[in-house]
Amino acid sequence: MVAIDERRLLRRLDELAQRGALPGGGLYRALYTPAWVSATELVSGWMKEAGLLVRRDAVGNVWGRVEGSRGGRAIVTGSHIDTVRGGGALDGALGVVAAVEAVASLVSQLGRPLRILEAVAICEEEGSRFNTNFWGARAIADRIEPDEASRARDADGVTLADAMRGVGLDPANVAQAIRRDIDTFVELHVEQGPILEEEGPRLGVVRTIVGTAHLEVVVRGQPDHAGATAMDRRRDALLGASAMMLAIADVAREMGPPAVATVGTIAVEPAQVNVVPGLARFTVDARHSDNAQRTLLVADITRVCKVAGRERDLSVDVRTLRDRPAVQLNERAADVARRACLACGVAPRDMTSGAGHDAQVLSAAAHAAMIFVPSIGGRSHCPEEATAAEDVILGTRALAAALRDLAYS
Amino acid sequence: MVAIDERRLLRRLDELAQRGALPGGGLYRALYTPAWVSATELVSGWMKEAGLLVRRDAVGNVWGRVEGSRGGRAIVTGSHIDTVRGGGALDGALGVVAAVEAVASLVSQLGRPLRILEAVAICEEEGSRFNTNFWGARAIADRIEPDEASRARDADGVTLADAMRGVGLDPANVAQAIRRDIDTFVELHVEQGPILEEEGPRLGVVRTIVGTAHLEVVVRGQPDHAGATAMDRRRDALLGASAMMLAIADVAREMGPPAVATVGTIAVEPAQVNVVPGLARFTVDARHSDNAQRTLLVADITRVCKVAGRERDLSVDVRTLRDRPAVQLNERAADVARRACLACGVAPRDMTSGAGHDAQVLSAAAHAAMIFVPSIGGRSHCPEEATAAEDVILGTRALAAALRDLAYS
Repeated sequence: MVAIDERRLLRRLDELAQRGALPGGGLYRALYTPAWVSATELVSGWMKEAGLLVRRDAVGNVWGRVEGSRGGRAIVTGSHIDTVRGGGALDGALGVVAAVEAVASLVSQLGRPLRILEAVAICEEEGSRFNTNFWGARAIADRIEPDEASRARDADGVTLADAMRGVGLDPANVAQAIRRDIDTFVELHVEQGPILEEEGPRLGVVRTIVGTAHLEVVVRGQPDHAGATAMDRRRDALLGASAMMLAIADVAREMGPPAVATVGTIAVEPAQVNVVPGLARFTVDARHSDNAQRTLLVADITRVCKVAGRERDLSVDVRTLRDRPAVQLNERAADVARRACLACGVAPRDMTSGAGHDAQVLSAAAHAAMIFVPSIGGRSHCPEEATAAEDVILGTRALAAALRDLAYS
Repeated sequence: MVAIDERRLLRRLDELAQRGALPGGGLYRALYTPAWVSATELVSGWMKEAGLLVRRDAVGNVWGRVEGSRGGRAIVTGSHIDTVRGGGALDGALGVVAAVEAVASLVSQLGRPLRILEAVAICEEEGSRFNTNFWGARAIADRIEPDEASRARDADGVTLADAMRGVGLDPANVAQAIRRDIDTFVELHVEQGPILEEEGPRLGVVRTIVGTAHLEVVVRGQPDHAGATAMDRRRDALLGASAMMLAIADVAREMGPPAVATVGTIAVEPAQVNVVPGLARFTVDARHSDNAQRTLLVADITRVCKVAGRERDLSVDVRTLRDRPAVQLNERAADVARRACLACGVAPRDMTSGAGHDAQVLSAAAHAAMIFVPSIGGRSHCPEEATAAEDVILGTRALAAALRDLAYS
């Protein structure tokens, strides 16, 4: 077993949770914001303290590296440093802090590895600011679209390119972040669901990451005076959207687990207390681990929206913002993760992740594996997101054991 | 009959509609904004052209006055100069332009009246910027609450007091706008509903203005990860709000006309595509011409929200933002308006207004009457708001006839 510094691990999780903490609880570390800069500098400092060679790549991923005596392709561990708005202290952060802890512990106890070993804090996964999910991992895996940085804008109209310049990055250099020399990527993450907590065991190894479609639904009716327009003369876009949102949830329920569908954002126009909404615009997040079922789920969601629109004389446009298929993670890398869990005394559960992860993008460029630890109450993307300290420690030990297997033998 | 300058009337309506015109259609003249300043200056110019004594009062209502040979209490006509966001060219504006036209025509053809005669452009009625409906008429009728100007804020956090200072008004002087010397207020307005267009005649006289309650409903559930949280484990605040919004519309439909209930605004938190909404906040506008029925409507709306919340394990708070009772307009003033319509060849319909109007507030300080002209398609609070030119002219003639009756005999 590799010993880790448990107190340092937990203390650093707390320290990182201060970066981007919101006054009302929860935190928000959005890409290229001051909170994000502060967080990446904190992680850089830890990497330097461990004697790693630290560099920030062309999109702001922070890498800490130790050379391997045999050279060759690299063994990498890490996760993302950004959070959703109002998110918790562990989504992404656990995988970053545990990566630094595991690599530092291995190097201090076992010296130079046979293979190159790296910890990475990936700049962005959540898409919370620019709606550019997996920006960091996609830059590594050569999946950035041409001109993406100049097209993507945040809610204030700032382009991703300008935000990069604001933190000293040149959007013309994005391609320099590409890595073609990664052998295996191992990511430790909180489950973000209730299965490990309720059914055990305390560790999981991910086999499949669900496919996710994001839709935008625009409902157009007729704005009218809220006092002078009788109920039966209205073409109320928000009432139509209400019927659609209920129908969308029913579609996912009827399809059964693991199908999920979520309306997370909605806006109406003209958005006045005394005006019947003439337009409603909402997003749908629809997921399934089976690609054919995901396609069916999206088709059913589109259908129920159209039906509800026809019933209420509303026009309905459904547009696909993105549609990412389910990803099967590498079986050999999963075997390494399983052996590492067993070495920590836990026979892990094979799992399907309902959440997207950097590992799914990096699986296009490397063997990728993921280890899950339990989430208390299954909660995530909220201030209450938490994992028992003993599980944080156990997961980090399993991560270190997997990296030892990969980089030292 | 008093002759009016029909071409000038229609041209001025067009001119005023340029003030605050939005690039995408419709217009927005919000209180104390540059568009509002420009509109009030335009109206001031017309009043001066008619030889009226023009003054801007302590809240920015613009008055044009001609003294009466007998003195005494004043005869006033007018409406509001502000609009809702994305509103049309006539709501308020018709009553302002027609007031100037009618007074100018009377003075030029009949000379000095027996009684003081005034046209007024009331600064704000819609509450679109500060949620301070009837700000202008309430200032005249001594219905402003202490510190209201320093408490009310727009969406950018600007206080009403600061917005006043920005256009050269001193919030400390608000009480100087009070008028205790108005005998009768006559307001010409578009119906904003379909009755006159569909059933005739072309003129209506308002008997009752409905009571309006504004509620805020806050629904609290639990924010969760959209991918990792199974459908049956969610406490989705927006799904609960959807059920509530449909139930609220059903309550108004079941109560039957003239009950109406409208959800015009909604927001969710954390408002992320991939997060189950933990909070939804929406407004309800509920109206009825009968005060007991309005109270029942509000109680039923509150009840169905609570029931939907219980069914979904959501907490629900319903708060009354304002609750204004129905207003019966003055019967003698209505008789004057009826005679004026008859003098124009139309036996007017007695009407209930589903919309609120300055006349309802001024009815606390003066005899108040309203004349309605048809709205094409019943549309209002939208760019399509329109009235046939011949009806605009007819309504202005009727207004002039009423003012002649009141001020010259």
